Amino acid sequence: MEEGNQSHTVSDDSIKALDLARQVRCIVKLGGAAITCKNELETIHEENLATVSSHLRKTMASKSGVHKGGLGRSLVKAGFVATRISVTSLNLQIVRALAREGIPSVGMSPFSCGWSTCERNIAAVDLHGVSKAINFGFVPVLHGDAVFDDSLGCTILSGDVIIRHLAEHLKPDYVVFLTDVLGVYDRPPSEPNAVLLREIVVGEDGRWSVLQPIMHNSNTEVEITVAAHDTTGGMVTKISEAAMIAKLGIEVYIVKAATDHSLRALSGKIRGKIPDDWLGTVIRFSR
Amino acid sequence: MEEGNQSHTVSDDSIKALDLARQVRCIVKLGGAAITCKNELETIHEENLATVSSHLRKTMASKSGVHKGGLGRSLVKAGFVATRISVTSLNLQIVRALAREGIPSVGMSPFSCGWSTCERNIAAVDLHGVSKAINFGFVPVLHGDAVFDDSLGCTILSGDVIIRHLAEHLKPDYVVFLTDVLGVYDRPPSEPNAVLLREIVVGEDGRWSVLQPIMHNSNTEVEITVAAHDTTGGMVTKISEAAMIAKLGIEVYIVKAATDHSLRALSGKIRGKIPDDWLGTVIRFSR
Repeated sequence: MEEGNQSHTVSDDSIKALDLARQVRCIVKLGGAAITCKNELETIHEENLATVSSHLRKTMASKSGVHKGGLGRSLVKAGFVATRISVTSLNLQIVRALAREGIPSVGMSPFSCGWSTCERNIAAVDLHGVSKAINFGFVPVLHGDAVFDDSLGCTILSGDVIIRHLAEHLKPDYVVFLTDVLGVYDRPPSEPNAVLLREIVVGEDGRWSVLQPIMHNSNTEVEITVAAHDTTGGMVTKISEAAMIAKLGIEVYIVKAATDHSLRALSGKIRGKIPDDWLGTVIRFSR
Repeated sequence: MEEGNQSHTVSDDSIKALDLARQVRCIVKLGGAAITCKNELETIHEENLATVSSHLRKTMASKSGVHKGGLGRSLVKAGFVATRISVTSLNLQIVRALAREGIPSVGMSPFSCGWSTCERNIAAVDLHGVSKAINFGFVPVLHGDAVFDDSLGCTILSGDVIIRHLAEHLKPDYVVFLTDVLGVYDRPPSEPNAVLLREIVVGEDGRWSVLQPIMHNSNTEVEITVAAHDTTGGMVTKISEAAMIAKLGIEVYIVKAATDHSLRALSGKIRGKIPDDWLGTVIRFSR
């Protein structure tokens, strides 16, 4: 009755997927009208969606073989899924908040963008999409994500590692880490004598030392105390990644979010010289 | 103080982004601690996030030039952003519903996956990520999306076109379109004499005709009435895409979501022969 338009272009990339042919039993199109409420914008019809999901489970359960892995693997998969739901949900809320301010931002999940790792190190990244979005005038919003790892199956790719990778390839003028404390301290910031490290320099060899304030202890001792208050490795990872960015000649500011200090850092007003009334940590390269 | 681990592998793909170097002024890391509530799992600190977003707007506003386009282009960008927020939000809800049923699903936005069009036809697609997810035992959940168009700037890539493209390359046994009516009718289903078309066959030339029920009108007349009740082009596009899938030798079922009919279609029980008590539309290839 209607002659279909059969003209369309296919990129060579898609050929890669051909080896998957016949591994897929069924493709399902969940129509918008089928799972949203009539006359209510963007409202999910929870009951229908739950029934459809249950149908899909029943359909899949009857076919999935034990060869796909036991409980252990299922639990890992469930964790992978839960992690991705959590991070994409936060990402969506950030994109919404930026859009409310009129910033044309687009969420881009590293997992969807094809980022993967090997032994937790970044193995494959296609920054083409990120570049294209920037060229079109959009602000790409990435996030730490669960990704496939060629060696471990899957792993968590942290936001700090992503930032370092982006910095390496996009070569920005500066990088700002917004955090919940004023900057990097010589010990847990909750301790009474904690000292805010205002300026850290990174040498050619990748080693870093505190330039401001002048520390009474040796560098080695500072290293120990910074590491000690951070059992999860979070701050050490952050400083380590920041140091690698600084080594590229890109200044890094670690500063408390939603303060005048962070606003000044974001505006680029800290570049070159740190104002006396500015609180935060600058990490820069020094030959 | 700490020597950074500088070993990491970079794929050749990322080299593409090098031409973007120096177009980016600043990369911002929005720390989780900075924009979520302490001790409350995954709860956004709305006030901090709003302040940070406002800071970013102020920072960007002072730098963005007029050369990036006037009101028209801004509005298009805002529409693009709003569309993506809407579709990714629905996608997230679907992934959540599937996860609740224990289906290990992963949301994959066509925009993030690098899908783009030229003159609204699919121009570039990388199905590698989708294939990999399937091979790892996950269910990729894609969605209609706003994408960049090499000719038009941007456009909407419909879910039906995506399904057809996936079917072409993944070659599933069958494809199910879940919708809010029983199937395809010869006129608006709300009209009293609307007839459910149970079996449509597609020929080598891409033309389709109704096999069941036997129509009193000629094919030409049916064509007109199907088109007439669908000013948005939705049903015509759907049948046209479904016909192209059927032409590949893949059976297509258009069926009402969350019913016993859809459960049977999903389970593959309609393949080959349509049971008398099954309500829906089958579209298949016939030489």
